This record gives sequence, structure tokens and C-alpha cells, in this order.
Amino acid sequence: MVRQEELLCEGKTKRLYATDQQGLAVMFFKDEVTAYEGLKRGRILGKGAINNAITHKIYTLLKAQGIETHYVAPLDDVRCVVRTCEMIPLKIRVHNWVAGTLTERVGLPAGTKLDAPVIEMLHKSSRFVQTPITEDEAVAKGLVTAEEMHQLTETSLTINRILCGVMHTVSVEVVDIKMEYGRVDGHIILADEITPDNARFWDASTHEPLDIDCFKRDLGETERAYQELFARMKHVEEIHA
Amino acid sequence: MVRQEELLCEGKTKRLYATDQQGLAVMFFKDEVTAYEGLKRGRILGKGAINNAITHKIYTLLKAQGIETHYVAPLDDVRCVVRTCEMIPLKIRVHNWVAGTLTERVGLPAGTKLDAPVIEMLHKSSRFVQTPITEDEAVAKGLVTAEEMHQLTETSLTINRILCGVMHTVSVEVVDIKMEYGRVDGHIILADEITPDNARFWDASTHEPLDIDCFKRDLGETERAYQELFARMKHVEEIHA
Repeated sequence: MVRQEELLCEGKTKRLYATDQQGLAVMFFKDEVTAYEGLKRGRILGKGAINNAITHKIYTLLKAQGIETHYVAPLDDVRCVVRTCEMIPLKIRVHNWVAGTLTERVGLPAGTKLDAPVIEMLHKSSRFVQTPITEDEAVAKGLVTAEEMHQLTETSLTINRILCGVMHTVSVEVVDIKMEYGRVDGHIILADEITPDNARFWDASTHEPLDIDCFKRDLGETERAYQELFARMKHVEEIHA
Repeated sequence: MVRQEELLCEGKTKRLYATDQQGLAVMFFKDEVTAYEGLKRGRILGKGAINNAITHKIYTLLKAQGIETHYVAPLDDVRCVVRTCEMIPLKIRVHNWVAGTLTERVGLPAGTKLDAPVIEMLHKSSRFVQTPITEDEAVAKGLVTAEEMHQLTETSLTINRILCGVMHTVSVEVVDIKMEYGRVDGHIILADEITPDNARFWDASTHEPLDIDCFKRDLGETERAYQELFARMKHVEEIHA
């Protein structure tokens, strides 16, 4: 059994703790939520537990498909054990549908299905500063090697393809997902989380959001949206069991 | 003989005229120059003639290497005949050395040699508005197909490789080059110009600019810089004749 020790870092939706075991950390999912650069704050009851469970499902599913991740095992309702890794300061978002800030950038109305996935990349140059960056620039800056960059984009597209496929079976559209990666022993693994806190999921028929956009857009019943998404994900497990 | 007819459009450094022949236009190179969004204006004596001659040399050289271009033939000192094409509203710049605005974007000092070329792309959304755009976004926006986008980047890298190679033989570093493309009969050709007005060339030993940066940075003797570059290019021709 892993024992949680001192806090290593705290983000908007999670805390990361050291443990008594070399190479392992504890990831704790908060109920708290912030949006619009911290201007809007709130709490979604039960969000931490749902995101912990969703992360378990998604990362287990990805592992079964050959994607190496930092996920080790659940610890309790709101915590799981992950491998520590050297984080790569890039956020890679894969878009399948036009939503959010992509609307302006591609000049297409929100809700448009893209013919092919669009990759968007941000450089986390400090805890509070994120700037758009291209693949060539990330390599030139020395953030990743050219081979790593290629692997990051290919893996992100593969993860997107896998998730689109399984979520489709439970009538959920994967609108966009955000991924962060780290290095362990010289190779790259998927880190962070893929949850409705940082990815967009829509009901396939109504295009109603089942994610953090409910909170951002004051659609009400954000708890219900998260619960609904999680209920469908449990169904995924049954389908793919 | 092609006869020049009405003005089709005028840019900062060139004018394009219709001709009496279907599918052909006349490109006229101006001596005038502007920089910093038009805030700095001036005239470089003989620039039009030098750029016309440089375009002739570069586009002829590229054609010999299998790159299809809009260039047809010289008309006089400051004019040449080109094929008309449907312009693709993308500016593709390939960087080999860090200079200009790339300095900030990759966080490396000006004058650093890049390990691999860095591609930068701008969308010309109107005559006066240019915004950074990624390959995926350009495809999603419908500016180009995925196949065309691939062809544009591959061709730009090939052109860069060819020019770096020949310019190296006359002690000139190709710092960065900007390319624009058009469509003719459903395929893509290199259009516009590659001249010291829109590309950066440095003396290989001193790293002194032989391009428009002389004007921008008030280094004086911009005419001499253009003449020096052109003199070396004539030497290229002798080497490769």
C-alpha cells in the first residue's frame, strides 16, 4: 500500500503528493473548479470522485490498447496512484468538432464537425503563461526532440481515435481532448488526466455538453452532466468487457 | 511578345499587370520599399532591376531542379512575364537561422543556427491582415486540402534546401525565405518572388545582412548590399553553368 506524503504541487483541479515509494505519486481530484483564468470559481459536488473514476476507466482502456500512461491504480474515491515523470511543458489538444476558441481560429461556426482532427499546441512557459507554439518551434526551443514531437502528435491522434470509437458506442461525441505527457526512463508516457474538466464531450443527438462547459456557460446541473457522462462510461465498460 | 495592359494589383514591392495573352501577367519590381507596417518608407535605387534579375536567377534555377513556378521569362530590366494563378492565401517562411520575430518565439538569440529548418505560416485573411495559422487550421478552414498542405510544406523545404546549397557556394547563408503559392489547372506552383525584399541573406563570414534588414535597421548602403548579393548570385550561375 502506498502512503501519501507531502504536497508536491497543486493545480486548478488536482493536487499531486509524494509517497513513501520511489517513482510513485498520489493524484487527488478536487471538487473545486475555476474557469476564465480563475475569474469564475465554484464547486461541483462529487466531481473529484467522478473524475477519479473516469481517469481510471480511460487510462485503463488506453493501456489495453497499447498506450503507455502514468496511471497505476485507484487508491480511494478521489485519489489514484501514478508514476512520477518529468513533465513535457506542452498541452496538446485534438479537436474533432469546432467549439470554444477554435471557432474564431478556423472561422467555422461552433458545432461544425471537422473533416479531420485539428491539433492545437500550447507551451506552458510558466505556471500561469501558456502560448501557442508550433511543432517546429517546440523542437527549435529544445522542449522536445523531433522524434519525440512526432511521437506526441501520433500518440495524441491515436488516443483521440480510440476514445472517439468507444464513446460513440454510448452516444457521446468527443469534441476535443487535451493531453499532457512526461518522460520516464527516456521514453514518453501519457500523464495528467483526460476528464470532462479538460475535454469536451457532447451528447451525440442533442449536442448538449456533458463537461465543464455546463459550468462555464451557467447551464446549471453540472453535477448531473458529469454523472450522466460517467454513467455512459460505465456502459462503455460493459460493452468492451 | 507580350503586351502589358491594365494594372491588376499593387503590393509593397511589386505591381502586377494584365497582358494581351490569356494566362500571362507582367510582374513589375518597384524601387520603393516599406517596412514596419508601412511606417518606414523609402527607395533603394536599382532595387527593382536587381530583384527582377534575382527572381530570374532563382526561379530558373528552381525550375532546373524540378520545382514548378509561375515564372515565364524576363521582359525588360524591371519586368518579367509570369503565369496567372489563383493565389493560396498563405505565406510560408522557412527559417534556418534565428532572426527577426523568431527570436522571441523560440527563445533563442538572434544569429543562432537552427538544428533543423523551422516552418512559420501566416494566413493572409485580407490585404492588411496576416495571422499565424497551423497546418491543421489551414486545412480545417478550407484554404487548402490536406494533400496540398503536405505538398506546400515539402516543396518549401525542398526549395530551401536547394537555395541553401547553391548560396553556400558563394559564401551566403540563407537565413529565412518566404514563399507563396498559387493553383493553375488544379496543381500548385511557386508564385510571388524570392528576393532580398522578403528573404534574409547573410554574408557567411560576417553575418552582415545582404537584404532588406539593411534598410530596416538603418545600416546604410542598402543599394550596395543588394548589389553585392546580386554579384554573388551571378557567380552562382557561373558555378552551376
